[in-house]
Amino acid sequence: MKVLVINSGSSSIKYQLIDTKAGISLAKGLVDRIGLSNSSLKQSREDGHKINLFGEIFEHSQALEYILAALTSEKHGVIKSLDEIDAVGHRLVHGGEHFKASVLITDEVMDVLNECIDLAPLHNPPNIKGVQAARAHLGKTPMVGVFDTAFHSTMPDYAYIYGIPYELYKRYGIRRYGFHGTSHRYVSQEFARMYGKDISSLKLISCHLGNGASVAAVQYGKSVDTSMGFTPLEGLVMGTRSGDVDPGVILQIATKEDLDVSDLNNLLNKHGGMLGISGLSSDMRDIEEAMEKGDERAILAMNVYNYRLKKYIAAYAGAMGGVDGIIFTGGIGENGPITRKGALEGLEFMGIHVDDSLNESMIRGKQGEINPPDAPVKVTVIPTNEELVIALDTEAIVSKRFTE
Amino acid sequence: MKVLVINSGSSSIKYQLIDTKAGISLAKGLVDRIGLSNSSLKQSREDGHKINLFGEIFEHSQALEYILAALTSEKHGVIKSLDEIDAVGHRLVHGGEHFKASVLITDEVMDVLNECIDLAPLHNPPNIKGVQAARAHLGKTPMVGVFDTAFHSTMPDYAYIYGIPYELYKRYGIRRYGFHGTSHRYVSQEFARMYGKDISSLKLISCHLGNGASVAAVQYGKSVDTSMGFTPLEGLVMGTRSGDVDPGVILQIATKEDLDVSDLNNLLNKHGGMLGISGLSSDMRDIEEAMEKGDERAILAMNVYNYRLKKYIAAYAGAMGGVDGIIFTGGIGENGPITRKGALEGLEFMGIHVDDSLNESMIRGKQGEINPPDAPVKVTVIPTNEELVIALDTEAIVSKRFTE
Repeated sequence: MKVLVINSGSSSIKYQLIDTKAGISLAKGLVDRIGLSNSSLKQSREDGHKINLFGEIFEHSQALEYILAALTSEKHGVIKSLDEIDAVGHRLVHGGEHFKASVLITDEVMDVLNECIDLAPLHNPPNIKGVQAARAHLGKTPMVGVFDTAFHSTMPDYAYIYGIPYELYKRYGIRRYGFHGTSHRYVSQEFARMYGKDISSLKLISCHLGNGASVAAVQYGKSVDTSMGFTPLEGLVMGTRSGDVDPGVILQIATKEDLDVSDLNNLLNKHGGMLGISGLSSDMRDIEEAMEKGDERAILAMNVYNYRLKKYIAAYAGAMGGVDGIIFTGGIGENGPITRKGALEGLEFMGIHVDDSLNESMIRGKQGEINPPDAPVKVTVIPTNEELVIALDTEAIVSKRFTE
Repeated sequence: MKVLVINSGSSSIKYQLIDTKAGISLAKGLVDRIGLSNSSLKQSREDGHKINLFGEIFEHSQALEYILAALTSEKHGVIKSLDEIDAVGHRLVHGGEHFKASVLITDEVMDVLNECIDLAPLHNPPNIKGVQAARAHLGKTPMVGVFDTAFHSTMPDYAYIYGIPYELYKRYGIRRYGFHGTSHRYVSQEFARMYGKDISSLKLISCHLGNGASVAAVQYGKSVDTSMGFTPLEGLVMGTRSGDVDPGVILQIATKEDLDVSDLNNLLNKHGGMLGISGLSSDMRDIEEAMEKGDERAILAMNVYNYRLKKYIAAYAGAMGGVDGIIFTGGIGENGPITRKGALEGLEFMGIHVDDSLNESMIRGKQGEINPPDAPVKVTVIPTNEELVIALDTEAIVSKRFTE
């Protein structure tokens, strides 16, 4: 089955056309700067052929026209007609409490998605625009929504309830939802496959460390806790996001700097994290470069990053009553030996050990273990592939519909 | 030495007259509802004799007059004249980065205290009023300030820096400070004494669980991390305080309920925590009673409380590279077998075990261990005594002054 996977942001659409049978991506691309100047479409085919087009792309529906044209282009494309697209899989950020798994997108589902806008005002509206655009151009093609929050819907109530008036949970759905679910699910399953184990026997801690970053406790195949919360702002220190902060700090900043909610959102989401602490950059590569030159704030930022991650790993081991495996994924997870080592140092008493030379030899995109062979806990690096999960979920749901 | 220990709140003063040589409290009392209607003074002597007076007490200086009169009263008092008070020890909440230990109170110290008002606008002004009142009535008596934050001044930077712009730390001192330091220090030292060990060889986790609650990681006698932060709002779920919350939750509540900073402060400090989740009470005894009747929200509140505590304990074991002993103190710590068991269940893989019958037999005010005899980690209940620490610190500093 050929599945078009779509990930719509406010001014961009990432896409891949995936052949689920072969498990490969036929083409992947990005439409960027939608509604801004210098919009562009980049696409690369599996055979390495690339295109890079510039133009005026005003909105998501138009962006999708460009994508479909690029995919069916005689010269640059990978399919001859749109009929070859068997299904569309949409990455959707926030499914609230309504969606505990991927769903076939219907008019009713669209209504519920619209009701969830409030839960993720930054992410859900562009997601919905992407779905609407796809429905406009590929109306007859079945579509599936895959939620970032769904994998975490198995969390017990005591892990998702905040210490705020319960009415606020009932009234506005304010609770922990968690994100990166598709990634945490994928790498956990990959871990089980890597060791030929049944996932329902494993206690895993999955660390998805990219620009956004989250940790999940995956017990017997189910998420039982995760560091992101009601929004993707909670948890680890990230590129530009604060992660966990004393609520009193937010109120103090609001008072001292005379900031309103929108200013605070901006400050905590865009000016915090590694950028805020280091004063240099949100990019871990820049931080590492500055560290080599002895920059104290870069060193501090890295130490905070690793220390917070260590505390989450230890806390989740505690939450599950032990840990069998640790997974690092995402840009920093796959390509950050300093972080992997820094976050696990001191956890030897839990059976967690890192082999320095294995750790340093892991490079982005490579899968493998970095613990010494006799260590009780398997420490692994597993590149994530959210698009493949979306494609496979889409295939499963669409096939089921046709056989029913 | 006889030390008068004073703890001034916004509308109350708690006090004790402690004989440091004997290590006993000669009298303890509370002036309540200062500046409100029906002000009162309660005092109980070591011999059990009690008084309970009502009157109009408009401000702290007047409250102190009443206290000194009660202490020197021929019928109800414990001393004949104010000259018998050798020193005064003040509990002070927030010392910022200025005070890393207890200090002799001088005019210069008062100036710095005034500079720290911003850091704890709720706690520092009444603290200062208490000191001023004592200086007005006992001007020649040496006075010492003992800070709740001081014990945590040994935290490494990566434990106290938040993921916010570093300028906010430099400009306003926004960082983790931690509180309950006097209590964490006392029970850690008691733990070492109880086992005849040198504290500089121990990794301890101290859980101070009262209306306010915090956990501290005490490595080799020094605090290396603690759950309260810039304010006492961060960390564990408390009686009415939220503890850790996604920053995005605060912004969502502000938007949805149209609340300003003062409303949010009120909501998170007074309407959250156990009260907020259960909808019943901030008092753990009420929660336990409701649990027995099968109240689901009370059960949820208890589960959240214990689960959050468990994660902190596990995280701090991770932060220290292991743990030798766990200490429970404060009302819930000393009198909460459900919490002690609930928070430690599942941590057996770290060598933490609880003996159910020992756990259930511990009652408030009793000191002892609740682990099975062969367990690697000692789990203890140690009643705190902050007033004694304040008196002993005061004695040490005052004596030093006289011998210099």
